[in-house]
Amino acid sequence: MNVTIGGRPQHFRTVTFDSARNEVRLIEQRLLPHEFKIVATRTYEETATAIRDMVVRGAGAIGATAAYGLAQGIHAFRGSGLRQFEQHTRKVFRTIEAARPTAVDPVNAMRDVQAAMAAGEGVEERQALALAAAEEFANEDVEHCRAIGRHGAKLIRNGMKVLTHCNAGWLAFVDVGSATAPLYAAQDSGRRFHVFCDETRPRSQGATLTAWELAQQGVPHQIIADNAAGLLFARGEIDLVIVGSDRTLGRTGEVANKIGTYTKAVLAARHRVPFYVAIPLSTIDWEMKSGRQIPIEERVGSEVLGAWGLTAAGQREYVRVANPTSSAFNPGFDVTPAELITGIITPAGIFKPAELWKHRRKLGGPA
Amino acid sequence: MNVTIGGRPQHFRTVTFDSARNEVRLIEQRLLPHEFKIVATRTYEETATAIRDMVVRGAGAIGATAAYGLAQGIHAFRGSGLRQFEQHTRKVFRTIEAARPTAVDPVNAMRDVQAAMAAGEGVEERQALALAAAEEFANEDVEHCRAIGRHGAKLIRNGMKVLTHCNAGWLAFVDVGSATAPLYAAQDSGRRFHVFCDETRPRSQGATLTAWELAQQGVPHQIIADNAAGLLFARGEIDLVIVGSDRTLGRTGEVANKIGTYTKAVLAARHRVPFYVAIPLSTIDWEMKSGRQIPIEERVGSEVLGAWGLTAAGQREYVRVANPTSSAFNPGFDVTPAELITGIITPAGIFKPAELWKHRRKLGGPA
Repeated sequence: MNVTIGGRPQHFRTVTFDSARNEVRLIEQRLLPHEFKIVATRTYEETATAIRDMVVRGAGAIGATAAYGLAQGIHAFRGSGLRQFEQHTRKVFRTIEAARPTAVDPVNAMRDVQAAMAAGEGVEERQALALAAAEEFANEDVEHCRAIGRHGAKLIRNGMKVLTHCNAGWLAFVDVGSATAPLYAAQDSGRRFHVFCDETRPRSQGATLTAWELAQQGVPHQIIADNAAGLLFARGEIDLVIVGSDRTLGRTGEVANKIGTYTKAVLAARHRVPFYVAIPLSTIDWEMKSGRQIPIEERVGSEVLGAWGLTAAGQREYVRVANPTSSAFNPGFDVTPAELITGIITPAGIFKPAELWKHRRKLGGPA
Repeated sequence: MNVTIGGRPQHFRTVTFDSARNEVRLIEQRLLPHEFKIVATRTYEETATAIRDMVVRGAGAIGATAAYGLAQGIHAFRGSGLRQFEQHTRKVFRTIEAARPTAVDPVNAMRDVQAAMAAGEGVEERQALALAAAEEFANEDVEHCRAIGRHGAKLIRNGMKVLTHCNAGWLAFVDVGSATAPLYAAQDSGRRFHVFCDETRPRSQGATLTAWELAQQGVPHQIIADNAAGLLFARGEIDLVIVGSDRTLGRTGEVANKIGTYTKAVLAARHRVPFYVAIPLSTIDWEMKSGRQIPIEERVGSEVLGAWGLTAAGQREYVRVANPTSSAFNPGFDVTPAELITGIITPAGIFKPAELWKHRRKLGGPA
């Protein structure tokens, strides 16, 4: 999407590959929203480190980075023996896999690259196929997000006020995003609307990343404290809610997403405001039988007990806000039941959460 | 309540009067939770400044401070003419009134002092009566909070998990507090329970003031992001909610309180968890006919866009968290309808919100 540099909007993806230099180029997301900077990783080890240290984050974005990183590592192979080449490939795979051991997207992306590469005869052909497969993975991520946008944009009418939570924007994918895709598509069609970004404590991804994206894109928006949505619903000032999802259960339609999502769904239901979840197909879990089985990550208390930001002197610092002798309970996600969800916006169309299983063929599910 | 100093708990009130020195002594609340310090104001002008600059905040606490400040100013009068004395009294009254022009408690408290003083014949007698009336005002504030505690403590059983929002604790009153009073009374009776303190963004009074109070009092507690309560309700980990109120409508039972209160009430109702509001009688508004008439203060956006806290170097600093080119919408309060409130805990007992009007005589309401 666009980033305005020197007064001019320029188009960027969160991750691209420079094949001439064999470099992965990434938006340094840890500096946002205060600084926009592109960094290049020159080796697959540097790419793995960038994934580990969260220079890049978000399911689609780390998938594509891993795919490019594998191609990068493979391209750097010097030699001709296929056995040696395969050993090298495994080492690259394992190094990148270890960068975010609980994430599934890098592994799936690298498997795609490996599968495509297997058709090649010699080392050089495989190197070329690996790069082509990585490019295809990234392009498909963008295409899927655009398809989410086309379907979701139909929900947004002129003058609407839309609530979002956390960041499922283009920074979390290669481009366009999932929850933001309908907004960007509606904007492209000339529709005017207003977005309320939940701050999304404790990590404030709404106030930092989503607000930055919308500002760069020229979408009118305001940041609100997570506490303020209730008043807006009660006043009739929210017409539509769109959020993303970290895991959607194909069998039940339950949605695990950033902590606080469930609360917004409860408020939306009380006030009869449509509540939509936008997802790429890769986040559908076709195995799990109940949302109660979804493991809820408990994160460090310091996230709740303070905040990271820019001081008056322009230094990025953590400040301790809370009472120094108190501790925090900090769950990262919650689960929203299907009954509170109006629809799931996918690249294949919009579905009722309870009907995902019925449409599983269209959605890449099991037979 | 208690503050632990040098390992030993000592009892403090938020505001006291030193008649020998004619000084008002206040807990410097702007330094909490990072530093505990008592400051003395030596003139009524200094007392007014302390109210204005929020050294002391909270309805009961600023009421008592104003009462003491008026007595302090009156005591400083040098002369004997009653007319001159009355002119002086009016000047003191107006100076303190102007410190927080929208607050009703300082004015009501000072009117109490003036009324009591009118019975005195000469200047000296009136000076003595003013001080006695200010002391009585402060003591009554404490008595009312203790009565809230006695009634509310019956709701708290061993092993319960209690959710609170914002700070309606002893720091907001002379002692004991309103929403915290049932907790402290239950603790005094030997009951064991756990408190979840909503962080209460954007000003974080839950993470700072309530958590500090509970820690000093030895009440087991954890701070949670405002987003996390939904998960706790869904897991059945909240048994009771107690909050305070800035204004409770005697005719409808609607409650205006810190932004985010309504959201917690909606969650509590969905999960059939009792939701109580603890209030002194002075916060009941017997005139207003609908919660829609309650003015909702809009506060500066910077509260939402960043946070105040302590840097690693121990400096109190504001950090900007949010995207620098985004703005915020920052309402300070919301309104919870009577249907979501299980009961109103008052010094005169616990009442259904819809029955406040029926019991208005007991509650200091109109005939």
